[in-house]
Amino acid sequence: MTTRNRIYLIGFSGAGKSAVGRSTARLLGWRFEDADERIVERAGKPVERVFAEDGEPAFRELERATIAEFAREEHVVVSTGAGSVMHDQSLGGMLSSGLVVALEARPETVYRRLSHIAELDGAEAMTRPMLQSDDPLGRIESLKRERQWAYAHAHWTVHTDDLSIEQAALEVVRAWRRLGAPSAWEDDPDFAATVRLEQGAYPVFVGWDSLEDQLGRRLAQMGLSGRAFIVCDSNVVHPYGRAAQRSLHAAGIEMGLFTFPAGEASKNLATATVLYEWLAERRAERRDAIVAVGGGVVGDLAGYVAATFLRGIRVVQVPTSLTAMVDSSIGGKTGVDLPVAKNMVGAFHHPAMVLTDVSALRTLPERALREGWAEAVKHGLALEAGLVDLYEEHADALQSLDPELTTRAVAWNAAVKARMVSADEREMSGLRQLLNYGHTIGHGLEAAAGYDAYLHGEAVAIGMTGAARLGMLEGVTPPELVERQASLIARFGLPSAYMGVEPEAILEAMSRDKKTTAGQISWVLLDGVGSSRTHRGIAPERVASVVRELGA
Amino acid sequence: MTTRNRIYLIGFSGAGKSAVGRSTARLLGWRFEDADERIVERAGKPVERVFAEDGEPAFRELERATIAEFAREEHVVVSTGAGSVMHDQSLGGMLSSGLVVALEARPETVYRRLSHIAELDGAEAMTRPMLQSDDPLGRIESLKRERQWAYAHAHWTVHTDDLSIEQAALEVVRAWRRLGAPSAWEDDPDFAATVRLEQGAYPVFVGWDSLEDQLGRRLAQMGLSGRAFIVCDSNVVHPYGRAAQRSLHAAGIEMGLFTFPAGEASKNLATATVLYEWLAERRAERRDAIVAVGGGVVGDLAGYVAATFLRGIRVVQVPTSLTAMVDSSIGGKTGVDLPVAKNMVGAFHHPAMVLTDVSALRTLPERALREGWAEAVKHGLALEAGLVDLYEEHADALQSLDPELTTRAVAWNAAVKARMVSADEREMSGLRQLLNYGHTIGHGLEAAAGYDAYLHGEAVAIGMTGAARLGMLEGVTPPELVERQASLIARFGLPSAYMGVEPEAILEAMSRDKKTTAGQISWVLLDGVGSSRTHRGIAPERVASVVRELGA
Repeated sequence: MTTRNRIYLIGFSGAGKSAVGRSTARLLGWRFEDADERIVERAGKPVERVFAEDGEPAFRELERATIAEFAREEHVVVSTGAGSVMHDQSLGGMLSSGLVVALEARPETVYRRLSHIAELDGAEAMTRPMLQSDDPLGRIESLKRERQWAYAHAHWTVHTDDLSIEQAALEVVRAWRRLGAPSAWEDDPDFAATVRLEQGAYPVFVGWDSLEDQLGRRLAQMGLSGRAFIVCDSNVVHPYGRAAQRSLHAAGIEMGLFTFPAGEASKNLATATVLYEWLAERRAERRDAIVAVGGGVVGDLAGYVAATFLRGIRVVQVPTSLTAMVDSSIGGKTGVDLPVAKNMVGAFHHPAMVLTDVSALRTLPERALREGWAEAVKHGLALEAGLVDLYEEHADALQSLDPELTTRAVAWNAAVKARMVSADEREMSGLRQLLNYGHTIGHGLEAAAGYDAYLHGEAVAIGMTGAARLGMLEGVTPPELVERQASLIARFGLPSAYMGVEPEAILEAMSRDKKTTAGQISWVLLDGVGSSRTHRGIAPERVASVVRELGA
Repeated sequence: MTTRNRIYLIGFSGAGKSAVGRSTARLLGWRFEDADERIVERAGKPVERVFAEDGEPAFRELERATIAEFAREEHVVVSTGAGSVMHDQSLGGMLSSGLVVALEARPETVYRRLSHIAELDGAEAMTRPMLQSDDPLGRIESLKRERQWAYAHAHWTVHTDDLSIEQAALEVVRAWRRLGAPSAWEDDPDFAATVRLEQGAYPVFVGWDSLEDQLGRRLAQMGLSGRAFIVCDSNVVHPYGRAAQRSLHAAGIEMGLFTFPAGEASKNLATATVLYEWLAERRAERRDAIVAVGGGVVGDLAGYVAATFLRGIRVVQVPTSLTAMVDSSIGGKTGVDLPVAKNMVGAFHHPAMVLTDVSALRTLPERALREGWAEAVKHGLALEAGLVDLYEEHADALQSLDPELTTRAVAWNAAVKARMVSADEREMSGLRQLLNYGHTIGHGLEAAAGYDAYLHGEAVAIGMTGAARLGMLEGVTPPELVERQASLIARFGLPSAYMGVEPEAILEAMSRDKKTTAGQISWVLLDGVGSSRTHRGIAPERVASVVRELGA
């Protein structure tokens, strides 16, 4: 559907088209228009006189022309006459130029509402034909029955019987955000993915050498009316924090820059507190935005502060590490560590935009680059066979950061992540959990080793190796896939065994993970290339033996 | 609608009833049932043979009896045959015993999906009749057209054309949460209100001497499978923290108790950090819950920690101050203060339940009790005329805590607050903003006076006095209403003027409020008893003169 900033409400008399339309327009800050009023304006006489003097075809032509007129206007909610939908050309015009929402109401509801309107002065003419029948409910039913087929053509339907006007309008706005909101960005050359959420959609752009060139311009396009507060760490402030500043400056956006010492040790409530106070001193408002420029630590911390400052301000993610580009910048997970465990404090807070400049990988330390490929390999193995082919064919070019291939790989990974997040925004359905392939043992290993010995991606690579063996023992993962995964992990220089950690400590940490429920661990296992499922109830002894064997 | 734990999916062939039904059942942890399969089971022969050998009426009777059977089962998602809805008794049986959701798909979508199914082995018989026509799309259109009227009877409709199976299932779950989820609690003698949200609904219970008697039992009813962590402050631990403990103990719920020093000074990130670490040490899991027993500070702090620990665990609010009972415990606003301003860090996190024991007001200090009436008076003036009558008639009995009248007043206030929150969950539509009557000047006064001189309710009472004068100057608030408000404020012993604060400091703090956008203040003004609207663009000089006059 390629709709723009137009919503048409269709439905039977008494379904609430005018009241809900006005309320919807108010919620969106748009204009409200009544199609019949516009027709009267064009005709210079009341609808009844058009019918009587010029005939129905003349009225239908007027109606078609009026809809065509709305189709050229922007930011408008149009309430249509109850009969508009019976005319193919009018309905077609609406369906092709905006989001068409049918308001539905049961005949009893229609009858009750129309009786109520009839009691008001001056509304008699409108409701008389239906209510003055001997059997008004029967008359409503039969008229509505005729039109029901046309209402079914709508893009969305809202049943208004048990909703207030306000609630019905919120449902229309929600439908627009989910189905109709224009994604002009999908034509952009750097467009990689759209994340679709309850509250709206956001774009992921992936380009090469794009940060300084695009950041300011895209923030302006996003409708930023306030200031931008850049957050970065001491590793990326030169050159990327500065590049972001120059880009915002060129776009005329007022800004501030906050830098903290690089490293996971900074990702805590103390750093968050300093950032909160820095924002408060600058009197940051809800219309301002945080721009997180950096790797996972910056994204998580700045995202968490954005989630909680003033109960939530916008954040734009500008990932500069591979892990952040393919994974953590997309999906809204934000948080900080407690001394006892990572990411114990956090919130879901989706960015307003993700802007990835893949060329930033050129300055990433080699080990950090390598760990980033672990999450990319994971996306391929668990969810997207095509990615596995790409990695196998171009492992060397990708690791040496060939601009075209690396940009393609990052954009593809972003699309996989965006798809999973859109399907399961808050990890409710279990679908998003598939992204945790390799993470069960991985998290346990990180926690047991003290977060210093292994980078996250390294732990995930070891975790994938363990999960594949477990999958094989469970009869789920084919042995040849276990081999294929092992070669891929090796080709990207990632570890497949741990050293210097007690297996019992890993098992103990796994039992403490926040995803563990009542001691039950949910495992993501491969059943094919790019195909995975969750499994529960795997025997703890089997898990323990796999974890022990993973020790080098 | 009084539906229970049953969802019926209706719709045309190819709308996705089986696939979406299975996915919905998985999301809810319910069983999935196919009505046609059950019919075959009952009949002991295939549907076609029932038709051929016993005739259509026999089939319809089987269908009706099968639906009646489902109506006695719990936690079941039923996918119905495409024709079930054409039989009034079957449709009626579904509508009266569960949530009926119509899955909608355009004829082109139906054709595409059925062609795809036809390519699969063994599915030919099912799709042959429609696809083997000369004009399959036309055949689909005309068959669907006949049934459209029946589909319109559903409680909700989901258009599946542009959704994945998973997304469509999430829409069905959402409809169930909004419309169908049973609110058994509405029959409870202490039931005061239901707050209805995107993610589900929660109850507010208001009783007298109910804490120890009910807390544990209600937590068990709520389905708490984990532990309960009681959070309270040094003022309320005796007797209410202990009463909560005894109640949980009696219900066999494992628990912990965390106490911090009473007072606004504790509502900060430092206390939150201690609480996070306390929870982490106890290995709190996502299935555990926090029980906030206390006034606004406890509710805000414990609610904020619940919002952010493990990215969100459940919280149950047990308010013990009047302000918390009538206002802050309902609506999901949580947060902590920064040194520079109150509530600068926060999150929306709705409780799973609010349990109010009005008798706790007997131990509330007199000044705290008095300030609580300010928010209650505000609800009446801005939103509910009946409350104003109640206060005027029974001001003395209410202030001396007559059990019956005070419980009634608190329950009524909770219902007003719940209504506003349900209509505007995240303060997006401006409706919920009406709850801020008196708060614009009130917040400014609190900030300027340093949060020590005035309690929140006192500042709101002074703020309402200022807002009423401003409303009168703007020609919005009738002078007699200004008088009536003044008497009510005086009868409840609340202040109407401030002392010892510079008006300029108040004005300056108002400009810094988080609700200020681009320097524009949005004012809530009364236009009648229980009736208010927001106004923008009021002349700053007029505001300044009102604020100056409010000085005693």
